[in-house]
Amino acid sequence: MIINKVNQPIKVGVLGFGGLGQAAARLLAPKGEMIWVAAADRQGYAYNALGLNPNTAIKTYHDRGSLGYLDADGTLSAHSIQDLVTNHSVDGYFLALPNLPNTFMADVAKQFIKSGWQGVLVDALKRTSAVEQLLELQKDLQAAGITYLTGCGATPGLLTAAAAVAAQSYAEIHSVNITFGVGIANWEAYKATIREDIAHMSEYDVETARSMSDEEVSALLDKTNGIIALENMEHADDIMLELAGICDRDRVTVGGVVDTRNPKKPLSTNVQITGRTFEGKTSTHTFTLGDETTMAANVCGPAFGYLKAGIALKRRGITGLFTAAEIMPQFVK
Amino acid sequence: MIINKVNQPIKVGVLGFGGLGQAAARLLAPKGEMIWVAAADRQGYAYNALGLNPNTAIKTYHDRGSLGYLDADGTLSAHSIQDLVTNHSVDGYFLALPNLPNTFMADVAKQFIKSGWQGVLVDALKRTSAVEQLLELQKDLQAAGITYLTGCGATPGLLTAAAAVAAQSYAEIHSVNITFGVGIANWEAYKATIREDIAHMSEYDVETARSMSDEEVSALLDKTNGIIALENMEHADDIMLELAGICDRDRVTVGGVVDTRNPKKPLSTNVQITGRTFEGKTSTHTFTLGDETTMAANVCGPAFGYLKAGIALKRRGITGLFTAAEIMPQFVK
Repeated sequence: MIINKVNQPIKVGVLGFGGLGQAAARLLAPKGEMIWVAAADRQGYAYNALGLNPNTAIKTYHDRGSLGYLDADGTLSAHSIQDLVTNHSVDGYFLALPNLPNTFMADVAKQFIKSGWQGVLVDALKRTSAVEQLLELQKDLQAAGITYLTGCGATPGLLTAAAAVAAQSYAEIHSVNITFGVGIANWEAYKATIREDIAHMSEYDVETARSMSDEEVSALLDKTNGIIALENMEHADDIMLELAGICDRDRVTVGGVVDTRNPKKPLSTNVQITGRTFEGKTSTHTFTLGDETTMAANVCGPAFGYLKAGIALKRRGITGLFTAAEIMPQFVK
Repeated sequence: MIINKVNQPIKVGVLGFGGLGQAAARLLAPKGEMIWVAAADRQGYAYNALGLNPNTAIKTYHDRGSLGYLDADGTLSAHSIQDLVTNHSVDGYFLALPNLPNTFMADVAKQFIKSGWQGVLVDALKRTSAVEQLLELQKDLQAAGITYLTGCGATPGLLTAAAAVAAQSYAEIHSVNITFGVGIANWEAYKATIREDIAHMSEYDVETARSMSDEEVSALLDKTNGIIALENMEHADDIMLELAGICDRDRVTVGGVVDTRNPKKPLSTNVQITGRTFEGKTSTHTFTLGDETTMAANVCGPAFGYLKAGIALKRRGITGLFTAAEIMPQFVK
């Protein structure tokens, strides 16, 4: 009951202003329980205690390349995150940053710890190794008074939480299989996300994918007819379900198909949880996402649901690192 | 992270020893993180700090009608719950009691409050009005140092939690539709549960169903060929999702089919969550339970997952009333 009460709007910042960051801004605009007050990109940041306008912000970012050029609210800065965090009051940040390089999210967390800022951080990172890096910061985050929720997008995130709920029917979990379908009309709207996906392909890694030019990405997608098909991906759903005590990480598999030329999903995103009941029966629960829900809705929606839950934890003095498999996200109105 | 640590087995009691209570005892037996130390029925109770044996307990209950007759561990008592709670050390209780009459669960909660016992209570009740009665005890539970998690079975419980997770993709929830299929080989194994189901039928209420003799139940089931088909049931999923801020209760519907003569489910239990995304699309997420999972697995599994989560809350000093839609259940090994 009490955990769920929000008395005044939560002041929210978004770090990173690519496809996800922009979707986050649009998603927040109509909310009453949250107010979008800040965002940062590589060259600058914007802040307005009364709320930023997503249309103006997105237009400025598209036209001039940084939120730092935003009239009145913008500040150009080569240390945009640090300057924003130090100078302005924000309750929680959604880290809508591509985790490229793979140490980036942990580096940002260290910046927050160092800054003395106390609040809630939520990320939508993907890789197991990235969560492992954050685990090393558990004590520092706690001591700093930061409540950090990791893996709070779609997968890991929404699907991991659904798996954690579903697991309750079983005495032992045999497998958790996540299969995602993503359809996007135009890959250039999600340049960083697509590079993160390419990094999972067999002949690529994070560094080679990150360093690809747009032309190289285009050429690769021409070869695959716009399709990126992925199997046995390094995805943090595995470590998150292991940390939640549900099953060893090697029982969790993640794969999917991304169609970069068609907003229609190539398959319905789903997670299948197979286990043995206390009565000795083997069975499978299935959670399937509606095809009309986009990656943006399935990533940003949960992220803010976890941010709201994180604020409730923080207000009770509960700090440190948590994953999406441990905490029930709270619906944001 | 920290929330999930269990250093010594949780001492668990089960109140009520009908079909659900017996299933709970069997489910707990192989667990390392929990130890089944106590159970009570109307005529007595059993307690053993080193753990009770489910086979012996169930045999004694069947043969003699009460756990109070259990050799060494049993005590006959007309105030079995009160005596058990007052005299023995138990960390948390699963209230596997039929809520007949409809005030029964709240009355039991009041008994716990009055007793001075501090610990975790979990119920698997079904009706909205029963949760409303517990809501009135919120402050008393908190003051008494009791962490009470309500609606923690299958529906409400597992399916409500899945709906709460699924809702995160949407800006607004249009409907949550729960449809359950239950197949049981022999209704007499779940005499109280079946009466709770009959109470939802159009010509019955809680009192008339409760007062039915076994012969009357049999005669009714002969007329329906063993099928109980239910629509628009009064089910607490609605108030739980409303309290969690997800949607008004009138957007939540619950119905289902119980086959009392066939262990095979007449349909696959599922919850469909329909909403509008921030991008204006309408879509439906679906969570479907594997047909091989029984009512017992889907009720008792979640109940103990919530009990473990409740212990973590209690250890942090968080007391009062919570629902299955607010808290992530924790997997019990």
